[in-house]
This record gives sequence, C-alpha cells and structure tokens, in this order.
Amino acid sequence: MNHVSKDISPTVTTGPLPASTKVYKPGVIHPDIRVPMREISLHPTAGETPVTVYDCSGPYSDPKVKTDIGQGLPRLREAWIEARGDVERYEGRPVTAADNGFVSEEKMAPVFPHTNKPFRAKEGKTVTQLAYARAGIITSEMEFIAIRENIGRKQAKEAMVRDGEDWGAEIPDYCTPEFVRDEIARGRAIIPSNINHPESEPMIIGRNFLVKINANIGNSAVTSSMAEEVEKMVWSIRWGGDTVMDLSTGRNIHNIREWIIRNSPVPIGTVPIYQALEKVNGVAEDLNWGVFRETLIEQAEQGVDYFTIHAGVRLPYVPLTAERTTGIVSRGGSIMAKWCLAHHKESFLYEHFEDICDICAAYDVSFSLGDGLRPGSIADANDKAQFAELETLGELTEVAWKKDCQVMIEGPGHVPMHKIKVNMDKQLKECGEAPFYTLGPLTTDIAPGYDHITSGIGAAMIGWFGTAMLCYVTPKEHLGLPDREDVRTGVITYKIAAHAADLAKGHPGAQDRDDALSRARFEFRWEDQFNLSLDPETARLFHDQTLPKEAHKVAHFCSMCGPKFCSMKISQDIRDTAAQGGFGDAEKGMADMARKYRDGGDLYMPADDVKKEKAPPEAAE
Amino acid sequence: MNHVSKDISPTVTTGPLPASTKVYKPGVIHPDIRVPMREISLHPTAGETPVTVYDCSGPYSDPKVKTDIGQGLPRLREAWIEARGDVERYEGRPVTAADNGFVSEEKMAPVFPHTNKPFRAKEGKTVTQLAYARAGIITSEMEFIAIRENIGRKQAKEAMVRDGEDWGAEIPDYCTPEFVRDEIARGRAIIPSNINHPESEPMIIGRNFLVKINANIGNSAVTSSMAEEVEKMVWSIRWGGDTVMDLSTGRNIHNIREWIIRNSPVPIGTVPIYQALEKVNGVAEDLNWGVFRETLIEQAEQGVDYFTIHAGVRLPYVPLTAERTTGIVSRGGSIMAKWCLAHHKESFLYEHFEDICDICAAYDVSFSLGDGLRPGSIADANDKAQFAELETLGELTEVAWKKDCQVMIEGPGHVPMHKIKVNMDKQLKECGEAPFYTLGPLTTDIAPGYDHITSGIGAAMIGWFGTAMLCYVTPKEHLGLPDREDVRTGVITYKIAAHAADLAKGHPGAQDRDDALSRARFEFRWEDQFNLSLDPETARLFHDQTLPKEAHKVAHFCSMCGPKFCSMKISQDIRDTAAQGGFGDAEKGMADMARKYRDGGDLYMPADDVKKEKAPPEAAE
Repeated sequence: MNHVSKDISPTVTTGPLPASTKVYKPGVIHPDIRVPMREISLHPTAGETPVTVYDCSGPYSDPKVKTDIGQGLPRLREAWIEARGDVERYEGRPVTAADNGFVSEEKMAPVFPHTNKPFRAKEGKTVTQLAYARAGIITSEMEFIAIRENIGRKQAKEAMVRDGEDWGAEIPDYCTPEFVRDEIARGRAIIPSNINHPESEPMIIGRNFLVKINANIGNSAVTSSMAEEVEKMVWSIRWGGDTVMDLSTGRNIHNIREWIIRNSPVPIGTVPIYQALEKVNGVAEDLNWGVFRETLIEQAEQGVDYFTIHAGVRLPYVPLTAERTTGIVSRGGSIMAKWCLAHHKESFLYEHFEDICDICAAYDVSFSLGDGLRPGSIADANDKAQFAELETLGELTEVAWKKDCQVMIEGPGHVPMHKIKVNMDKQLKECGEAPFYTLGPLTTDIAPGYDHITSGIGAAMIGWFGTAMLCYVTPKEHLGLPDREDVRTGVITYKIAAHAADLAKGHPGAQDRDDALSRARFEFRWEDQFNLSLDPETARLFHDQTLPKEAHKVAHFCSMCGPKFCSMKISQDIRDTAAQGGFGDAEKGMADMARKYRDGGDLYMPADDVKKEKAPPEAAE
Repeated sequence: MNHVSKDISPTVTTGPLPASTKVYKPGVIHPDIRVPMREISLHPTAGETPVTVYDCSGPYSDPKVKTDIGQGLPRLREAWIEARGDVERYEGRPVTAADNGFVSEEKMAPVFPHTNKPFRAKEGKTVTQLAYARAGIITSEMEFIAIRENIGRKQAKEAMVRDGEDWGAEIPDYCTPEFVRDEIARGRAIIPSNINHPESEPMIIGRNFLVKINANIGNSAVTSSMAEEVEKMVWSIRWGGDTVMDLSTGRNIHNIREWIIRNSPVPIGTVPIYQALEKVNGVAEDLNWGVFRETLIEQAEQGVDYFTIHAGVRLPYVPLTAERTTGIVSRGGSIMAKWCLAHHKESFLYEHFEDICDICAAYDVSFSLGDGLRPGSIADANDKAQFAELETLGELTEVAWKKDCQVMIEGPGHVPMHKIKVNMDKQLKECGEAPFYTLGPLTTDIAPGYDHITSGIGAAMIGWFGTAMLCYVTPKEHLGLPDREDVRTGVITYKIAAHAADLAKGHPGAQDRDDALSRARFEFRWEDQFNLSLDPETARLFHDQTLPKEAHKVAHFCSMCGPKFCSMKISQDIRDTAAQGGFGDAEKGMADMARKYRDGGDLYMPADDVKKEKAPPEAAE
C-alpha cells in the first residue's frame, strides 16, 4: 500500500476570489439545505449592496471550510437520498486490474483512502429526479436549484422589464421549486445527480435556466497524474465550470476518477466507452455488451453523474461519412463505427439501449446522448450523417424517458454561423425539447491556437438560441492538452458565451452584474471593476501592466487618455445638470449650463485631484 | 537637426510567414498594377496547389524587397494619381509647434527625413474615387481591388454552389472592376485613398466585399515612441490589419504620424479632433472651426486616408445621455458635447460639415462619421441618444455624397446579442447603405481582460449581418494600452470574426482555406495545418508544448489520444471502402468490410508506423 501514501492529499487552489464572501441560503420546503452563493462587496463610495453571483466553486473558495483532498468533500446529499427510502447499500463490484488499464503496481495511482458501499435503487424503485418529478415530488435538489437559479431575480421582480429575444423559451420571472419540478417532469431540464455522488451541489441543465458550461479534464496515454487532474477540476470550477467531464484515456482511469468524484462539488460526466476500450486492450472489435455493462456499473457505483453514450452511431449511418472532408472526428463515434463495420452488425449500444437505461435508472445517471457523427469541419456541417444521428438520438430520448431516465443531447462541432440555428431548431424538434449540450460550435477552421474564440462565437449564438450547456474549448484544441492557463482561458471564454446568451435571452437578473460593473467603470471604481469581472486576477494584472502604481488604482483616469484628460467628466456634469433640472427648460437650462462651463469647466484633470471618482473612456475611438 | 538622426530608421518585423511566398498579379485594364497575394505552399504528399490568401502585410513580408523605414515605402500610386491630370503640387502648410503639441526640442520625435510637396485637386476638380466612379471611370485602384477581392473565386466559379445567408447583400460570384466601380458610385463601398498617401495598396470597405478589420495604434500622454508606433503598424498588418487608425493623443502627433504614413501600405485613419484639442492645450471650449480646419488640412496633406468626424453629436442630443449608465464614452463625443454645452451652440462640426466635405474632396479623404454617442454599456445599448445620432449621420451622408465624398459610418460599442441586428438594419436604412464600421460590439460588460472575446462575438455577428469593417478590441480594452502581443491577439480575434462572417454570408471562395486546413488536419499534415492557420507561430508553439519533438510534427497522432490510438484511421478506411465501391451493394459491401476489418483491422497505430498520414480527433468529446 505504499503507493497510497506517496502521493496522497494533493494540494489544490483554495481561498475566496477578491472581495468575495461565500453565503448560504436556506430552503423553505427543505430547511436543511444551504445554497452557496458568492457576494462581491463594493467600495463604500459606491453606496451599493454587494452583488451576489452564482457560485459553482464549492467549499474550496470558502475560507471557513477546511477541505482535505484525502478525505473528500462532505456528503451533503446523503441524508436526502436516504430519507427518500428507496435506496439500499450493497457490496459494490470489486475493482479489477482492467479497471485501471492493467497498469503495473509501481505506476498505479494511489487508491482513494476511504470507501463507502454504493447505493442503488431498491428492487422496483426508480431513483431518478425525473421519476420524482413525474410523481409530483419536489426534492431537496429541486428546491436547492430554484434558490440557486433565482440570484438577482427577487430584486428584478419588483421592476420587471423583460428585455430579450428568447426564441420560444419559457423563462419565468421567478423560478419556483415547482417550476423546476415541472421542467424536469417534462424532460426539458435535467439534474445530473448520481445517488453515489452525494458530494455534489445540485445544478440544473435546461433551456429555461441559466446557460451552463462544462470543462473537460482527463489524463491521456501521454501525460498527467492524479494530483494534476484533481487540481484541474478544482481550478476549472473556481472560474465557473458548472460540470466537469473526465475524458481520461490512459492508465489508472478508475483510481483517478475516484479522487475526482469524491472531491467534486459539481456533476462529473464521462464517456464510458473510453474505459471499456482500455479493458479490451484498445481493440475496438473486442468490445461487447458485457464489458460495456460492467464499465457502466463500475462508474455508476463510483458516482458518475452523466454518461456520454454514442448509441446514435448506427451501422447504416457509417457510409454517410465516406465523402466527408474530415470523416468521423469523435473518438467515441469512431470506436463504434469501427465496431459496427468489423462485425457488420448494428451497434450494441443501440441494441442494448433499454438495458443501459435500466442501469442509469438505478443510480440516476443522466444520459448525454453523444454526437459521434458531429462535423469536424465547416465543410461537413449539417450533413446527412450528422442529422441522421440526431434523429436517432430523438428516438432514444423517447426510450430513456419511458424508463424515467434524464436525458440531454450532445451537439456539434464545426458549424458556420448561418447553419447554427438550424441545429438548435432541429434538435428541439427531434428530441422533444430535451436539453442540448454543444461543443462550441467552431465557426471557422482556420484558427488553431484560438479555437476557444472560433467556438466561443458559435457557443454564444447557440446558447442564445436555446442550448442549455456549452462544452468549453481551450486554446489548445486540435493541438495539444490544455495546461492550467488554457483551462482558465477556456472556462472564462465560455462563461462569457453563456452570459452573453443569458443577456440576449432576457434572463431576469442576468444584467445586474453588467450594470454594477458598468457603474463602477463610470465612477472609476477600479477595484470594483476588477472584483466584479469574471477574472479579477487578469483584469488587475492587465491594468497594472500599464499603470503599475498602487495610487493609480484609485485614480480617476486610465492609461487610454492618461492623467491629463478624462473623457467622461463631461458625462458626470451632464448628469448633474439633469439632476438639477437643467434640461427641464431647454432654453434656460442650456444657458445656465453654458455659463457653468465657461465659469469653471476644464476637461483636464490633474492626477492628484481625486475629489470625485470618474470613468474611463474606451481605448478605441 | 540632431534629433533627426538619433532615432532614425527603426527596425520593424520583416520576412515572410512560414511556407509563404508573395506573388503579384497584374491588371488587364491597367497592366502596370501588381496586386500582392500570399501563396501558402503545402507538403508534397498533399498533392494540392498552394493556397492563395489575401495579404495586407505590404512589402515587409516580401524577402525580395528591401524596406527602409527612413526612406518610406515606394510611392506606387503616385504615377496613377498624376496620370489622371487633375491634381497639382503646392507648398504645403508649414509645420508649427502646435502640430506636435508644443513639445520641447529635446523631446521632439525625429522629423521624417524626406519631404514631398503635397498634392491637391486642381481648382474645380474633385479627385475622389466616388467622383471617378460616378463619371464611369474604372481607376487603377478599382481594378487592383477587383483582383485582390477575387482570391479563390475563379476556381469557385467553375462549381459555384453558394452556401450562406447574406441578409440582402449582393455579393457577385465574381468581382469585376466594373462591379467595384458601381459599388463605389452607389456609395455602398469606399476606397480610403488620400492622394497624399500614394504608398498605400488599394483596398475596399463595403458590404459586398470581404469583411475588413481595423487595428488601432497611437501614443498617449502616458507612453510610446515613434519607433514603437511604426513597429505596431507593421506588426498589426503582418497579422491581417486591413487599415490602421492612429489614435495618438500625446505630444509629437505630427511627426510620429508622418513616419507611420510614409511606411504604411494600408490606409491610415485618424480622429482629427484629438490633435486639434492638443493645439488648444486641451481646453475643449477653446476649439473652433479655424483650428479644426487647419488640422484637417495638415492631416490631409500628410496623407491620412480617413477622418473620424463626430459631427453627429448635436447640442439637442446631449441631454439624452443624462440618464445613461455610462454617459458618453467616446472621447471625441465627449469633447464635442462639452463644446456644445459650454457655448450653448450647435456643434461647429455639424455647422461646417460642407466645408469639411470640400477639404475631403480635394484630397480624397474618406469620412468615417463617428458615433460619439455610442453606448458604453449593455444598459445603454440602442437608446435614444445613440439612434438620434445615427439618424443625423444619415443626413450627413447625403451631404457628403452630394460633394462626391466617400463615407462610412461608425457603430457601437456595447450591445447584447439580441440588439445587434437592429443596429445593422437601422444603419442601412438611415445611411443609404453606406458601409458600417463597428467597434465590436461587446456582448457583455463583465469580462475586462477578455474584451477581445466579448466583442469578437458581436463583431462576427454584425459582420455577418452586413458590417463592412470591424474595429478590433484588444484584451487590454478598458484596462490599459495594448502591447505587441495584445495587438496580435486583437488582430487575430478580429480576423476570425471577419472570416466567420464571410463564411456565413456565403462569400465565394471564403471556405477554400478552411477546407484546405481541414484536409491537412484529417491527413495529419501538421506543418500544413500550422502554415494555413491565421497565426502559424502560435499554432506551432501550442503543439510543441505538448509534443515538443521534431518527429511528432510528422507523426500521425496528436496529444489528445497519444501515439497508440488514432480515432480517424477509421474514417480513412471508410473512405477507402467507399472508393472501392464497398457501399454500392450494401449487403456484400458490408460483409466485405466486416471481413476486411477482422483480417487486419486495428485501431492501434504504432508511433513509428508513418506510412500514411492520418488525422487528429477532437480533444473534447
């Protein structure tokens, strides 16, 4: 067991973001729930209350909580799960050498030091949030989510002017627990929440809720250790990852995943076929239902919250990819295509789909129906192969819903802007409004090194049109594995896309943070501007590169115009004039104003004249 | 004159981009013109001809040309201008101390060592491209542009399938010189081409042409020297800046601008009010028509190709900004608002607009009618102040057109996605389809440090909807002055936005480069993938960070899956099967394929088995 101790309890990034305090709101139906939020306090001169924002960073950002990776997070949902009386503990499946890719003893990642017997549904019970919702039950998870989604909406309700184009979404002014239940019951949203991942803080993925983002982590045959992967997970949720997918393909998949799940406050997704392939030594033809089923149970017992299942890659669709510019670019899709061709048989995932549903229903693993035939280039966007698979995903959605399983649908890929909306509309139609979960899409192929941007454009648009969750793309896409800074860049880019989508949909309360930051900008409250931004560290760093002195962070000028000239003084003066009724009688008001300006006006402001804080102009004219 | 020699002839970045050769195409109507393009050669295994791309980097990227900043670029348009017989040389206005902001002798930037007497139109002549176009003349500039815009379209014409949504644009399959003339004549496009900037390579800005981008440079009271600004100009066009705006606000404005223009192969834009303000010691109230007129002539004689003129900031609109969250964020807009209020008078720019037109007509300086009241926050988007100004810009467009002046219109700013299209539609309607030139727009306020991305999203969309030129935003927007890497990031981000827009509009030939890069990706031609990308240096660097060895750049795997597994081998096999008719008879074909796979199939590929090059899978599932 010496490999357990050598690398145990890695350190991860902890502590609050600047000027931020973690607060917890209790439930009403379920008073024991504590919904985490982040309050960003503002400078006293602002005269404003703190800005509360959605927070998926977990206990790591709460200095009052001492986290220990070797212990795992508190099992906050365990009591809720047990209280429902429909689960049982049992002896889980024993871990085999295959589970870790037959790694040698000396290279084995440490075993997580604590074990819990897994839960599963009692005979005859279905323990999915969908089953509860259909039965009219508002679970603790649902109320938790209602509170979480409502940030900023209580205030907004008072003066509710909805401004947006929601393309047929039905976002209520206020999000009630009953609304959450109803959306789940209708299949329009999912709560990925495996009963064996009680450490997770409930979150929802659906078109009528805030747009979410996913960050990918995972080792490969080339690189990465357990400690790195756990830190990547903590790091990506610190910046706003709502879920994390572990796409590991190398050795030690089982052991590393255990560390990740036990320490993750966000849902964890996987692509089980990756691990199954490792178990058959990478020979796709040797895959079979038995080994796949084993893998599903193994991962369900660990607590994986959603599975990407490429059951839509059917034998007859494979030839449709022959004329493509970039063939099949999905790893899972290519594995299944190869299997189908090698056996000249229909996909075993498709044929065993009901069996897969039974497993998912017993643990509440949500489906993320994979788009194995998604386009890998602009040339292949919206082609027959892609849409044939999407239609099959719609058929499978119906099957899963019959089994009370939660479902979302994965989407492309590489799609030029004018073909994005068709994807969304077709997905809603074919898949009965099940949530859409897209990778980008990338709107051009010509910018490797910047594919967070080529895809951020498409992500913002498809998020606006109705996609519920956006899978991030990092600058390293197509080129290599993302490092820490790439992960941050990918997450922030996708937070921008998701937030831009929320604004455009007219999500109630979404604009609160923009308004607070813009007021700070107008009033030259530099610290508030940094603190309210998605990435306060980078904002501050960039400012300091030009104006490094501490004094400049309270100066009412910026580096664009320098200390002499401030283009927004005039705006403040105009506002003051209006407040004094100076524009009421246009003639008199203007005459007064002219006099006022002639008396004392000067656009030049000495750098040390910090009586009133002022706003920065734009750098670009 | 010792200040001339001390800092003379700074070095700039020169040399070709990887695998690139500068080629020049001659004209037919005007056989002496040589239109520069960049040919990117591909690996011999590709069996493909070089990919030709639009090139605005000027002679700096041509190793056959020896450039010397102290000499300036060749005056390639001078003969064309003189041949038209409608210009005269004259003694230009003498440079005054005010022109350089009263800088002391020891701090004065060096004087450019060569002077030419400026051209102006002969009495009674109008020398604008619009005047020529209306007279039915196809100038050398127009033919140059037709050839330049046609890249990829000859080939495309043969099998022209137009795929895109152009929102009412009228992009022809093939761009003829007559089409260019007609678009200029209709005011739907402009060729910024001051007769005193004969070093420029003609380019066009219009909705029915490729979407262009502008990069901003310029010193401020805080920072920057002549050598830095010249290098910033060269650097920004190297990565794809189609025009450059010199937004200098500090000392030495005149001298630095001379160096920039004499060495710039792209049109240079300015905001003359900035320099005029320096001339009156920064006191906005002291501005007057005389000092402004002097400044216009000074800059027109130097060769500035387009002027931002904030003539739409009218006195009655100023109170409309009083209730805004961020007031007036445009520097020029705030200067004019202050002037109007201080004097209780209508703007002298508005009142003297015809006089301004007369100056512009005499040198062919194009108008960039400034949006001084653009929104500086999501809260202020599409408000009364913004749209009132836009209507006035439409009125001024008519005035300018009557004077044979070329006009484009500046646009916002900060605009959420659902309000972007309204901006475009209203601009087309109010301004008679004059080209739109927008800053972003930024689609959210909450990401300082990443505003190239918040705005890249909006830029791609508004470019798709019809904006002709996109003004870049760098990561330093709102925070500081961009450094070299920020300029590159801004330019590449905006090249992405412009190209995504071209693709979505269905611009003929635009997809050629995407297709070539995607084929390279599919066939694991790593070098070709780097070389075809917008930023080959960054693409290569990112690849090498994960797989640094030289051998890996010819390997048919990537770091996402590692050397053992390649998800796209299957795609190549499927394609091979199709080529052999394997899918013709479904039963037999599939049976054959099954046999084939069982006989020899293996998804594992040893790293050294480099017989055929293969394609990378996507990093993210």
